[in-house]
Amino acid sequence: MTFQAILFDAYGTLFDVYSISVMAEKLFPGKGEALAALWRDKQIEYTRLRTMSSTYKPFWEVTQDALIFSCKKLALDLDLNAQHALMSQYAKLPAFKENLSVLDALKSKGLKLAILSNANAAMLDAVVKAAGMETHFVHLLSADTVKKFKTAPETYQLGTELFSVPASQILFVSSNGWDICGASWFGYQTFWVNRAHAPLEELGVKPNGQGHSLTDLLAFVEHQPAS
Amino acid sequence: MTFQAILFDAYGTLFDVYSISVMAEKLFPGKGEALAALWRDKQIEYTRLRTMSSTYKPFWEVTQDALIFSCKKLALDLDLNAQHALMSQYAKLPAFKENLSVLDALKSKGLKLAILSNANAAMLDAVVKAAGMETHFVHLLSADTVKKFKTAPETYQLGTELFSVPASQILFVSSNGWDICGASWFGYQTFWVNRAHAPLEELGVKPNGQGHSLTDLLAFVEHQPAS
Repeated sequence: MTFQAILFDAYGTLFDVYSISVMAEKLFPGKGEALAALWRDKQIEYTRLRTMSSTYKPFWEVTQDALIFSCKKLALDLDLNAQHALMSQYAKLPAFKENLSVLDALKSKGLKLAILSNANAAMLDAVVKAAGMETHFVHLLSADTVKKFKTAPETYQLGTELFSVPASQILFVSSNGWDICGASWFGYQTFWVNRAHAPLEELGVKPNGQGHSLTDLLAFVEHQPAS
Repeated sequence: MTFQAILFDAYGTLFDVYSISVMAEKLFPGKGEALAALWRDKQIEYTRLRTMSSTYKPFWEVTQDALIFSCKKLALDLDLNAQHALMSQYAKLPAFKENLSVLDALKSKGLKLAILSNANAAMLDAVVKAAGMETHFVHLLSADTVKKFKTAPETYQLGTELFSVPASQILFVSSNGWDICGASWFGYQTFWVNRAHAPLEELGVKPNGQGHSLTDLLAFVEHQPAS
């Protein structure tokens, strides 16, 4: 294969961030989906603003700030119980159903797997553990180490440092189109898990491969020429 | 007054970006508002990604990329005629109706006024001229000078360099909550023209003043203690 290791984004790619809409809908009938969507957008927006302006805060806190803003914007009364319930659920977001078998198959090919996420270590540890994935990854890399969120190159660089190979020998996997662009700009090979069936971002970047689930990633990997 | 100069954001603050929905609605019946909203969100998103990843492109091109993506996402058939019509309209977005009288009044108080915008110079020149505001500003500062978009501190710094005073002696005015946060983090005094009646961003920042139009800005300035 043309790569020796695979780096996975976590939220959206391995873990279903929009699944939170089920609990959100119970708490705020008729508004669950809107809250899940806005919460995610704001969370990402805040990571970018705090990175550009060098006002870093751990992803857990950013996620909570984004929840509070989103409820204000949607005029939802977020009391402490609701906030606690939603944040607790966020700490154990479910993994997509195909993940474990695909990760097993990739590992059995001798590929080294790691996560490279905006999330801080405690958050990553919790969600990976809840999904029973503790043994699949050689490391959980966190933006918290460099105090900058993706798409800052310092964050992507954690992956090349971990594996001690050039970015061009690593495959970066994300469901987020913008993350694919950031990783490509950094120099990684990329596979876009386009779960949302979204158009490609107009940022002058094409992923090396794409599909709609990790199962498609496995097929892509299996069709790589032997190195 | 506690400030000697006022810096204005352009898009959303002086010029009505969502007015483009009228033309968008004619081109794509039933989708005008959705297109205007998504176009604006994508435009801002692309400025941030290109700033974090050091892949700068002028705002005019970013705006066009965002339009193309937004139409794909909304499954709208953007032919070259429609693209040209929308971009041409963007070059001459209307100013809010209170602007000219408020800018006149601020100028007559001896305040120096300038624009500090993500837009490149040609774009700024065109929109300011179309609104008849050529004589109101001492300078039109553009992110293009530093090849980074807001909220990069290098962009905000163009204002302190222009006026040769500390940021704390300049009032920064924007309708964009995130821009108010970036400017406050940089050190400016800030006035938030909260045209959309949005909640404050959960970024730990409060503007020095806020209102819903430039008329409210004038009232704020007139209630400042004499320096």
